[in-house]
Amino acid sequence: MAVYTEVSDTDLHDFVAQYDIGEVIACKGIAEGVENSNYLLRTTVDSYILTLYEKRVRAEDLPYFLGLMEHLAKAGQACPTPLHGRDGETLRHLCGKPAAIITFLDGMWPKRIQPFHCAGLGAALASFHLAGQSFPMTRANDLSLAGWQPLLDASAARAHEVRPGLAEDLAGELQFLGNNWPDNLPGGVIHADLFPDNVFFMGERLSGMIDFYFACNDAFAYDLAICLNAWCFEDGKNFNITKARQMLHSYRRIRPFSEAELAALPILARGSALRFLLTRLYDWLYHPEGALVRPKDPLEYYARLRFHRQTTGPGAYGLD
Amino acid sequence: MAVYTEVSDTDLHDFVAQYDIGEVIACKGIAEGVENSNYLLRTTVDSYILTLYEKRVRAEDLPYFLGLMEHLAKAGQACPTPLHGRDGETLRHLCGKPAAIITFLDGMWPKRIQPFHCAGLGAALASFHLAGQSFPMTRANDLSLAGWQPLLDASAARAHEVRPGLAEDLAGELQFLGNNWPDNLPGGVIHADLFPDNVFFMGERLSGMIDFYFACNDAFAYDLAICLNAWCFEDGKNFNITKARQMLHSYRRIRPFSEAELAALPILARGSALRFLLTRLYDWLYHPEGALVRPKDPLEYYARLRFHRQTTGPGAYGLD
Repeated sequence: MAVYTEVSDTDLHDFVAQYDIGEVIACKGIAEGVENSNYLLRTTVDSYILTLYEKRVRAEDLPYFLGLMEHLAKAGQACPTPLHGRDGETLRHLCGKPAAIITFLDGMWPKRIQPFHCAGLGAALASFHLAGQSFPMTRANDLSLAGWQPLLDASAARAHEVRPGLAEDLAGELQFLGNNWPDNLPGGVIHADLFPDNVFFMGERLSGMIDFYFACNDAFAYDLAICLNAWCFEDGKNFNITKARQMLHSYRRIRPFSEAELAALPILARGSALRFLLTRLYDWLYHPEGALVRPKDPLEYYARLRFHRQTTGPGAYGLD
Repeated sequence: MAVYTEVSDTDLHDFVAQYDIGEVIACKGIAEGVENSNYLLRTTVDSYILTLYEKRVRAEDLPYFLGLMEHLAKAGQACPTPLHGRDGETLRHLCGKPAAIITFLDGMWPKRIQPFHCAGLGAALASFHLAGQSFPMTRANDLSLAGWQPLLDASAARAHEVRPGLAEDLAGELQFLGNNWPDNLPGGVIHADLFPDNVFFMGERLSGMIDFYFACNDAFAYDLAICLNAWCFEDGKNFNITKARQMLHSYRRIRPFSEAELAALPILARGSALRFLLTRLYDWLYHPEGALVRPKDPLEYYARLRFHRQTTGPGAYGLD
C-alpha cells in the first residue's frame, strides 16, 4: 500500500504531453505495491499505469527492468510494457524521480489461491523463462546467497524480539546453505518476486504478470522455489502438495527440468524461504514509526523454512 | 490513504453480476480517502468507483448520503451518483459491509491551490446549496457545537502533549462559541468536508465534487467557513485574502449572502477551525499503532483558529 509522491496537476500535464496518449482525464494513486508509487492514469485515449520509482529501486537498474518488460511483451508474453515518448525514451523524470508510463494489464490478482491458479502460474513462469533467454542485458541477484549474511547481520541483535534464538538458528542455516548451495543450474532471467499480487487472472485464465523490479539473472529453479513458498502454503504454514504438483507439472510441460534442478529443489526452497524471512525480519524490526506500509510477519517464512528442512527430495513437492 | 478490505475475485464477480455493467476487467484499491475503502472498478462497459463503507460511517446514514448524490446528479450538479442494481437498490453488501457502485467522476484534485480554484469552488458550492434545497431527507450535523464538548473531553487529558495549555485554551473557546453561536441563519444541505481532495478540476474548470459522507443539514455559511479554512491558508498558517475574496465573490454571484451571514462569518470560521482541530487532535493522540492513515497535524487548525479570533468582520475575508 504505497503512494509516496503527490504529483501536481501541472507537473502531470507536462509529463503526459511528452507522449502521444491524449489528455489526462484522471490520475489516482493505487493502494497496492510497496516499492514504488503507482497511479492509474486515464487519458482521452486509454488507461495506463504511471510509476514513480522511489528510493528502494536503484535508478541504474531501471533500464534492465524496463528493457525486460518491453522484450517480454514483444515476445508475446502477457505483461505490461513501457510507453515510448515522442523522444523515443521510456524513462524520464517526474517530481524529481525516475518515472515511466506502462500499459495497463487487465485482470485481478487472486486473493484465495486455488490449484488452477498454481497450474496457470507454472505454465506462465516456464514461458517467461524461455522468453527471457533472448534478452541481452544481465543483472546479478543481489538478494541471493551473498546478500543474506549482511541482511542477517543487520537484524541479528534484535532477532530474539521476534523469536528467541532466531539469529543463531538462521546463522546455522546460512552456513548450511553456503556449504550446499548448487551452482551451474540452468538459468537466465528470473522474476524473483512472483507473489500472488503480481499475477493477474480473468476468471480462471492467467492474464499476465507484473512488477519486474526484482528481476535478475539466476537459476530458473530458484524462481520456482520462490513460487512454491509464495503460492503453496495455507494459513501461512501448512504446505499444500496439490498446489505444488499443479505448478510444477504445468511448468515442466513447457520447460522440462534437468535432474540437477529436481535434486536442488529442497535446498533452493530453503534458500528462498530464508531470503524472504530475512527481508521481512529487517522490515519488521526497523520499519519507521508511522510508515504507511504494514510490515509482514517474518515468522510465516520461518514456518516454511522448517518445512523445507525436513523434505528429502522433489517427491515432497509432488514430483515423481 | 485507505483500503481496509480485500475483496476476493469471486465475491466481486457475484456483486457486479447484480448490476447491468458488464464483466469485471480490473479492480484496484485507491490510495486516497480515509473513511472508506474505495476501488477503481473497470468493466467491459465503463469505469466506476466501488465503495465499501467501513465502520466510521454509520450504516443508517447511508440512505441519506446515497440519496443526496442521486438527487444532486439529477439536478445537474457535477457529482458521482450511485448505480441501481437489477433489483432497483443502490445499497447492498460486499464482504459483510455496506457497499455501493458509484459513477466515475473525471478530473483531479488540485495539489497546489490557485485563486482560480477558489473561484470555481465558490460557484460550485453555491450551486450545490441551491440544488440541495429540494432534497427531502435531513440529517443533523453531529460535528457542530453540541458535538465539540465530548470531543474535547475525550482529548483534554493528553492535549498538553500537542501544545501546553491547549485543553484550557479550547475549553475557553468552546464557552465563547456556545455563548455567541448564531442560529436562524439560512441553511439546508451542506457538504461539511469540502477539502481540496474532494473537488476535481480538468485544467482550470471545476469538474465536480465527491465524498458526501459528512453531508448534513446546517447553515450554508458554515460550509463556506469550512472552505475558507481548507482552501485559503498557505503553509498551514498564513491567510490568503485573495483566495478568500475569489471564493466568496463567486459564491454570492449565485447565492447572495444575507446580512446575518456576513456578520456571522468570523465566528463560523472559528467554529469550523475548532471542529477540525478537535477531530485531528483526537486522531493524533489516539491513532492506533500501525494505522495505515497518517494523522494530520492538529496545530495547523490552531493557527487558523488564532487568525479568526482577531478578525472583526467579513472585511477580513475580502468582502466589502
